[in-house]
Amino acid sequence: MQNFIFHNPVKVVFGKGEISKIAELIPEQANILLTFGGSSIKKNGVYDQVKAALKNRKVTDFGGIEPNPDYATCMKAVKIIREEKIDFILAAGGGSVIDGSKFIAAAACFEGADPWDILSKGAAIKKAVPIGAILTLSGTGSEMNSFAVISKRETGEKLAFGSPEVFPKFSILDPETTFSLPANQTSNGVVDAFVHVLEQYMTYDVNAPLQDRQAEAILLTLMEEGKKVLETPNDYNVRANIMWCATQALNGNISAGVPQDWASHSIGHELTARFGLAHGESLAVIAPAVMRNQKENKKDKLLKYASRIWGITEGSQDSIIEQAIYLTEKFFREMGLKSKLSEYGIEIEKALVIADDFEARGWKLGERGKIGKNEVIEILKSAL
Amino acid sequence: MQNFIFHNPVKVVFGKGEISKIAELIPEQANILLTFGGSSIKKNGVYDQVKAALKNRKVTDFGGIEPNPDYATCMKAVKIIREEKIDFILAAGGGSVIDGSKFIAAAACFEGADPWDILSKGAAIKKAVPIGAILTLSGTGSEMNSFAVISKRETGEKLAFGSPEVFPKFSILDPETTFSLPANQTSNGVVDAFVHVLEQYMTYDVNAPLQDRQAEAILLTLMEEGKKVLETPNDYNVRANIMWCATQALNGNISAGVPQDWASHSIGHELTARFGLAHGESLAVIAPAVMRNQKENKKDKLLKYASRIWGITEGSQDSIIEQAIYLTEKFFREMGLKSKLSEYGIEIEKALVIADDFEARGWKLGERGKIGKNEVIEILKSAL
Repeated sequence: MQNFIFHNPVKVVFGKGEISKIAELIPEQANILLTFGGSSIKKNGVYDQVKAALKNRKVTDFGGIEPNPDYATCMKAVKIIREEKIDFILAAGGGSVIDGSKFIAAAACFEGADPWDILSKGAAIKKAVPIGAILTLSGTGSEMNSFAVISKRETGEKLAFGSPEVFPKFSILDPETTFSLPANQTSNGVVDAFVHVLEQYMTYDVNAPLQDRQAEAILLTLMEEGKKVLETPNDYNVRANIMWCATQALNGNISAGVPQDWASHSIGHELTARFGLAHGESLAVIAPAVMRNQKENKKDKLLKYASRIWGITEGSQDSIIEQAIYLTEKFFREMGLKSKLSEYGIEIEKALVIADDFEARGWKLGERGKIGKNEVIEILKSAL
Repeated sequence: MQNFIFHNPVKVVFGKGEISKIAELIPEQANILLTFGGSSIKKNGVYDQVKAALKNRKVTDFGGIEPNPDYATCMKAVKIIREEKIDFILAAGGGSVIDGSKFIAAAACFEGADPWDILSKGAAIKKAVPIGAILTLSGTGSEMNSFAVISKRETGEKLAFGSPEVFPKFSILDPETTFSLPANQTSNGVVDAFVHVLEQYMTYDVNAPLQDRQAEAILLTLMEEGKKVLETPNDYNVRANIMWCATQALNGNISAGVPQDWASHSIGHELTARFGLAHGESLAVIAPAVMRNQKENKKDKLLKYASRIWGITEGSQDSIIEQAIYLTEKFFREMGLKSKLSEYGIEIEKALVIADDFEARGWKLGERGKIGKNEVIEILKSAL
């Protein structure tokens, strides 16, 4: 096992009816900015629940944070925070709203000239406006971590940052808020969480059997419950299990002491930024292609995955691994996602620019930093 | 799944060589009380590492916290804290030292007349001296939770308390500090952690498949690594895996949203207080007896346990369950622990007083509060 630090101070309040607790979780004198996306929190009742819980507290609304939150949108909120002397952000939505709010929180306190430096240059974050979250879509895990991904429509960039300063102080996870989601958003969330686990599990072995089994616990449960949710979207327990799986998939627990990959996410972010694929859609295409391309480097873990997740133990090592990857793709398809770039009408020549871009940035991806330009080209071609 | 709150702000710093980080983890101007047990931290080098890391910082030693920390000992430390204006406690040791330090931290700030009320009456804890921990024995999980168990030798009592105020600010987990432990202490720790998982897993089903699998992940890993550690006590990875299992067994993660039992611990504490059994020893005797006694109430989970942990699926339900309980006892014996009260020379008449005591306290144990006087008598008799 590798040395590690685990520190996750987020207070998770989980279960139906818990949104009513926000009044006691937010400091009484706080000047609150309520951030959200489109109209969904008005349709699913979350907006009304928030307003009822906060009664006469001072709340300014900031709606319109889009999927893959845009830098320009976030900067509008930053302006309001500075002008209105906001000192608490309540983010109600999915990963995009929470991610956007994390960036808003950090940018509002940023002392440098250009807050984009936080994303493009890893500029240090010394302080952030405190955040609380009400999760309405399971998938990204943003509700219980200190990371966020922000897009810049203007330049077609999509970049990540992280800081302990942007851990939510609390996150309310009420599975009922996800009943009314469109099926494709639910599916994207399940696949996103599944691939989050793969990024932390499908690497080389460092003798960390507990972390391996904890990762497998999430994968197996996501598969079981993911299939159920498409049949019975209003089943509370199914929604609750998916919600807790997605949170546990990226709260630092399964990555403690083990190497991590994140190549699928890096490539997937580019597909989103350039071709508009939803985050989960991009991962469903790329993650199997990365596994296939990195078959040798990930051999031991792929065999463990084949055996423990898919029950495949018979045949040559190569055929076992191929079957496991095939079944992974099959699961994603059963969740309603496509498997190939061509199904999205993406031409390979246009996709290959991603490889050039990574080279220009000097990026080497994967748990061993061995996925360079040539490997990205191979991965994209095999995902065609 | 049941509604729950999960909030664990402990910063875990895990791995060899990490004790050197305490200087940056403890506030620079702190007036530190270093709490420990006997001479083991001097033998295993932890004491020297602490002194080297803290160099010229102000540190007062307080040794002599015994296994099953005594109220009287703790109150001596409280006196020093008040007299010397100590404002940080650094606990170096196993669960007893950390538990004792939590009580010391709370008692030193207690405003009521008698700090024993914290344990006997659940008196509220409004404040505690901040604590940091250096773990040197895996088992209790005290390093990453807000609970502690304190004994009163004077009256033969052993009681638990918990408060968010006594979460350690940080805990250093260096597996190398456990290399030199006597085999029986290592074994007791493995069994303690194993039974912690059972207390949170072996209950009725609430449709929480992730938590079930996370619990099973710890059980399976403790079994594998527990057997190895007796053969190769200086194997770093084996020690590291056991250490992380024990921490994860009682940090709130696997109990999120599920019912909990704790009958084995309640009865076990009495066996320790009255007959001097080590904590792990008492659990190895009582936990199987509780499973047998509560066979009907715990049937579904016992069948899942039999199948997933022991691979038993053939035969009548009763025979499957009996085999699983038998194999649990066998595992504890392989770890070097006894299975029966009579092996410790305990006479049943003397043990049965425990049942009277629980009745006098009005205690009903177990996840459904159905283990009363008669059931405790049956459990003790079957554990004879």
